[in-house]
Amino acid sequence: MRIKVIIPLLTSKYNSAVQEELYPYIAPDVSITIINLESGSPSIESRYDEMYSTPEIVSKIVESEEEGYDGVFVSCVSDPAISVAREMVDIPIVGGFEPAALSAGMISKHWGIITISQSCARLVRDLATLAGIHQQLACIRSIDQPINELHKTPGQLEDVLLTQVKKMIKEEQVTAIVLGCTGMMGMAKYLSKEMKAVGMPIQIIDPTAVALGYLQMMIRAGLTHSRLEYPKLDLREREISCIKRPSS
Amino acid sequence: MRIKVIIPLLTSKYNSAVQEELYPYIAPDVSITIINLESGSPSIESRYDEMYSTPEIVSKIVESEEEGYDGVFVSCVSDPAISVAREMVDIPIVGGFEPAALSAGMISKHWGIITISQSCARLVRDLATLAGIHQQLACIRSIDQPINELHKTPGQLEDVLLTQVKKMIKEEQVTAIVLGCTGMMGMAKYLSKEMKAVGMPIQIIDPTAVALGYLQMMIRAGLTHSRLEYPKLDLREREISCIKRPSS
Amino acid sequence: MRIKVIIPLLTSKYNSAVQEELYPYIAPDVSITIINLESGSPSIESRYDEMYSTPEIVSKIVESEEEGYDGVFVSCVSDPAISVAREMVDIPIVGGFEPAALSAGMISKHWGIITISQSCARLVRDLATLAGIHQQLACIRSIDQPINELHKTPGQLEDVLLTQVKKMIKEEQVTAIVLGCTGMMGMAKYLSKEMKAVGMPIQIIDPTAVALGYLQMMIRAGLTHSRLEYPKLDLREREISCIKRPSS
Amino acid sequence: MRIKVIIPLLTSKYNSAVQEELYPYIAPDVSITIINLESGSPSIESRYDEMYSTPEIVSKIVESEEEGYDGVFVSCVSDPAISVAREMVDIPIVGGFEPAALSAGMISKHWGIITISQSCARLVRDLATLAGIHQQLACIRSIDQPINELHKTPGQLEDVLLTQVKKMIKEEQVTAIVLGCTGMMGMAKYLSKEMKAVGMPIQIIDPTAVALGYLQMMIRAGLTHSRLEYPKLDLREREISCIKRPSS
Amino acid sequence: MRIKVIIPLLTSKYNSAVQEELYPYIAPDVSITIINLESGSPSIESRYDEMYSTPEIVSKIVESEEEGYDGVFVSCVSDPAISVAREMVDIPIVGGFEPAALSAGMISKHWGIITISQSCARLVRDLATLAGIHQQLACIRSIDQPINELHKTPGQLEDVLLTQVKKMIKEEQVTAIVLGCTGMMGMAKYLSKEMKAVGMPIQIIDPTAVALGYLQMMIRAGLTHSRLEYPKLDLREREISCIKRPSS
Amino acid sequence: MRIKVIIPLLTSKYNSAVQEELYPYIAPDVSITIINLESGSPSIESRYDEMYSTPEIVSKIVESEEEGYDGVFVSCVSDPAISVAREMVDIPIVGGFEPAALSAGMISKHWGIITISQSCARLVRDLATLAGIHQQLACIRSIDQPINELHKTPGQLEDVLLTQVKKMIKEEQVTAIVLGCTGMMGMAKYLSKEMKAVGMPIQIIDPTAVALGYLQMMIRAGLTHSRLEYPKLDLREREISCIKRPSS
Repeated sequence: MRIKVIIPLLTSKYNSAVQEELYPYIAPDVSITIINLESGSPSIESRYDEMYSTPEIVSKIVESEEEGYDGVFVSCVSDPAISVAREMVDIPIVGGFEPAALSAGMISKHWGIITISQSCARLVRDLATLAGIHQQLACIRSIDQPINELHKTPGQLEDVLLTQVKKMIKEEQVTAIVLGCTGMMGMAKYLSKEMKAVGMPIQIIDPTAVALGYLQMMIRAGLTHSRLEYPKLDLREREISCIKRPSS
Repeated sequence: MRIKVIIPLLTSKYNSAVQEELYPYIAPDVSITIINLESGSPSIESRYDEMYSTPEIVSKIVESEEEGYDGVFVSCVSDPAISVAREMVDIPIVGGFEPAALSAGMISKHWGIITISQSCARLVRDLATLAGIHQQLACIRSIDQPINELHKTPGQLEDVLLTQVKKMIKEEQVTAIVLGCTGMMGMAKYLSKEMKAVGMPIQIIDPTAVALGYLQMMIRAGLTHSRLEYPKLDLREREISCIKRPSS
Repeated sequence: MRIKVIIPLLTSKYNSAVQEELYPYIAPDVSITIINLESGSPSIESRYDEMYSTPEIVSKIVESEEEGYDGVFVSCVSDPAISVAREMVDIPIVGGFEPAALSAGMISKHWGIITISQSCARLVRDLATLAGIHQQLACIRSIDQPINELHKTPGQLEDVLLTQVKKMIKEEQVTAIVLGCTGMMGMAKYLSKEMKAVGMPIQIIDPTAVALGYLQMMIRAGLTHSRLEYPKLDLREREISCIKRPSS
Repeated sequence: MRIKVIIPLLTSKYNSAVQEELYPYIAPDVSITIINLESGSPSIESRYDEMYSTPEIVSKIVESEEEGYDGVFVSCVSDPAISVAREMVDIPIVGGFEPAALSAGMISKHWGIITISQSCARLVRDLATLAGIHQQLACIRSIDQPINELHKTPGQLEDVLLTQVKKMIKEEQVTAIVLGCTGMMGMAKYLSKEMKAVGMPIQIIDPTAVALGYLQMMIRAGLTHSRLEYPKLDLREREISCIKRPSS
Repeated sequence: MRIKVIIPLLTSKYNSAVQEELYPYIAPDVSITIINLESGSPSIESRYDEMYSTPEIVSKIVESEEEGYDGVFVSCVSDPAISVAREMVDIPIVGGFEPAALSAGMISKHWGIITISQSCARLVRDLATLAGIHQQLACIRSIDQPINELHKTPGQLEDVLLTQVKKMIKEEQVTAIVLGCTGMMGMAKYLSKEMKAVGMPIQIIDPTAVALGYLQMMIRAGLTHSRLEYPKLDLREREISCIKRPSS
Repeated sequence: MRIKVIIPLLTSKYNSAVQEELYPYIAPDVSITIINLESGSPSIESRYDEMYSTPEIVSKIVESEEEGYDGVFVSCVSDPAISVAREMVDIPIVGGFEPAALSAGMISKHWGIITISQSCARLVRDLATLAGIHQQLACIRSIDQPINELHKTPGQLEDVLLTQVKKMIKEEQVTAIVLGCTGMMGMAKYLSKEMKAVGMPIQIIDPTAVALGYLQMMIRAGLTHSRLEYPKLDLREREISCIKRPSS
């Protein structure tokens, strides 16, 4: 089984760290290829960024299907390009939001999300509304830090997140938390361990771990998005040629 | 990774067929052990059956954790014993309903369930209400056939299901369907293929395939139910000794 | 009219106090018989307790119908055994949760529940979700005290509840409160009086008072649970003999 | 216990029939006084009728409290004057809708209402929305007959209702039905019996039976609407003198 | 285009101020006539007030249609008489609540309302429930001041509202606020400006501005309430003559 | 007041017809400028089309603000580019969906939408979910005709729509209908008239008429989208230069 991971950043500098991070989440018969974007926003933190990066992500998903990949994970919690790409390819595609949000319901009936900024919180809130899970979603909080700064001062992200997790348990009675950014690498394990140590054994959901598991599940089960839900228009008839699309 | 599968029937006669059926859904590093019940209802089709079989299923889940299994799948779409067992063990446990219902949202925003009887439809409707997914759930239909009869006449189950799938697309505009019984083995593939052949490419979700994928995901991600959501009471203090419970 | 009250404790020591407490809530033509359990959990405060006590409660409900009782009240706010028993008998059965929660909507459009522990709060939250009343339910709070300790120190329960009621009005703007444990005897009157005295005339709903009124209403109106909602499977055909079931 | 029943019609000709009808629904220690209106609409079948009859109903409720009645039932499924009167008196007041709709949830999780006209259906739909019970309410159907004609041709109302009940079971899978007019006297028993005879044992809820039971429950439990929910403005300060209001 | 504005107060003393206030919100081809009530409550702050003033408001709406007005705005956020009048006339009628609440969804997905008292908050909460917009409505807060006192001390209303707006942003994360009283003239502009100055650029929705714009839109679009939604009963047949009703 | 109307087609051939159509919906002090797209999809009927046309629409909205326009209407019921553009400009922007859907609640509490294809129905369903109005939205139906063919055979669109309207009233009991395509010019008037003639006086909502009215209302009221809801990221800092953005 071959999975393509698209990290929608303009840099490849995190790829090897991500590769290592992903390792425990994949089965022995799965291989992962990580790619990045050549143009677009440096990161996806607003609707503008999403519009700007979507066409290239879609192109790379179409390419992945042509190359014979079995599925694609777009490593971003705003699920950019996912809906559009589902109209164009047949292989399963997941972003960071849907798998984490749908899995949270197995673990908790009252959970929250931590995003990095108010702007990201808006994107995530709309995705939650679309996914129809607002009954369980207790709150969306933000740590108000730009993605690029997340890992600059060692230990700072850890502290900020730990404080936020404790506040969400106290003020909103959440019983699980979804990390709202795939850039929060390694944090789920750290936070789970710390919270257990202080007698508040909350589950912290890492979106990358869950998305990769979900994708493997879909591939093994032979499942993909429904073509009745994501109809495929015949682009040639409509004379649009901008984005390459596979014949099917 | 070792997974225990509990088929809550009083017979082991389907075990080898299920074993074969499961094979494509597990990774190479996963081993499966299938067990059955010694007492209880012959199958779980009512709240009475559920009450009657739950204690033995719980005991077997507790045993599985003691034996070192990494997770348990209770192969029944009424999710019997799942909530109770989550209070008692730390390893992840899934039934047939929650993973299938939560995954359907990735594939469709307007889907339905086919159950085998009105009685099962009631169990499943309550689970859907508890899971908070009613916004997407278009309908729950029943083929009104007892589980024991499902495989008696060759081709009959296929016909009945195919008719129902077509009606649900026409009358309820569903774009995906969850099979509401783990006894409908092999049907998802058959129905998907047939529906594609007649130009209605709907996704049919097999609860077993999805539950096993979900469980592997949880194990690899190190996730389990939240202890804040499923508190663990100290049974010794409360002097209850009926069901063996691990010290922890 | 004869009503059976099942207090799902292993002791009869509260029965006479309860009997006296119930007196104002029943009409002159109604007689009450109070019974307890012989085995099971000492009280029902978790899903485990519920599983453990349910079979005996169901047996006692079936017996009550055979003895000619007109209805049964299971005196516990987690509504144990209620759904299962409705599959088995024709007389109306109520627990402590449903009548109180459904009646609160007559009195207030924004109300809360006080439970005794986080574990009970989970049981009650699931019942509220199933009852479909979450639009009105402002919050579920817990006083974090085990049932057995409720009446040990005189005045302590009164104080803890009064503090919680005031907090819920201030922080959640509730206009009525359901007491989430039938063991909080006498508290509704006390709290109502105290709150009126301080100029915050909130309604406090005692689950026992409401459940008994509801049951009398159902019996006089000739109403019971719908057999289409709670189908009755023929147990003899399915060769289950554990729990006695009336021929009908 | 003394209960006032206000039948909001301009005629007293149904009073003795209603009195007889009510008899089984009240306890031996309860006395009922039935009154009618002197002016207003001949019956309440629209928002206009409601506006027109409300002031007199409110006056009669205020009077009932002054006369020492313990509670009032306004015998109409559009719950006219109920909210307003709750601002003015302290005794419990019920209409025909709220008790029936809230009780249906004990009996069924998927039920419907039969009203007499499209106009009444709109009133009832708004009440259902306000009560927050739309999750369970499967449908509101109308038999399209004016209230005055309900009892003219013997047997006609029975036939029309029976046909509608069967259609609602078949087309909407309801498991219980609320009769949406207090003028449908005797119909609940008839329909229940007929449906049981044809093997479709549905529960039919008579709003009068349930409302009277509810009111007795509230009186015995010492419950009434919350003053925090229905604030009482000091009318004398505001110099309004039209409708007599008790000093309190 | 001719619009009638009904200010449901017993005084005309605010009319010229309102007239001036309205000016920017109407197009050059629109003329406005402002009228008041002769009897009824001095202002509408409770369900009692609403009942008391509704008949006269309805009469004045019926008159407006007879006089050839194209639409009516009832200048009160409790939308008094609106539903009833829609049964009686064909021209569009708006109150202060519906247009503001439905427009807020264009501007924000998480907004709140500021009312003048707890009593008004109850009226507004019921209207929000009926309008089906509770998913977006974050909170309803009250400044606890009677309408008559709103403009007595210069600057006081400004201060109280400004404090409340800041609290709602901080505690409820609202991104827009609807002013819940048409008597809060001039406040929307003031608050918007002040909040922008302190770097919290929230939108403040003035109900009058939005209602008048909505009404002009409906008139130009040829839209009005649906007669299928608000059926028109033939009053002559039913022998009600209290309120004049146009032949149609 | 100057309004820019963007018709997101690659042709200007409908512009003069649209201009004439719009005339009754604008006030005398409003001027309209209609423009089209130079590249992108020929029409917006899928998520792919939306992705493809959005950047150019956004550019044209940014340009409109720079040119001093007071507001922009993007004439398409899938509301393309609306959310993104709200992050970038301060003037109010409306599409065809939101104003029509939010206004329908004034006219009806149970309404439907007619779209031109299953693909469009998916776009509209997601917008309805995001707008939080699903409680009122009875159904989304499709006439299954490509936009380009809508006006080819004279009278055909009229017939197809009339049939669908009648079916929706009969099968779904809708009391109003939103036309789900701005290309259905003139149809609202035609359908309203025909339906009135056959005694089914339903309201048909033309999205263009309502959107323009809404936009004029927002401009006169000084309202726009909340900056707290649509945060504005500083693009220069993030080194994105593709789409021109005004300094502010």
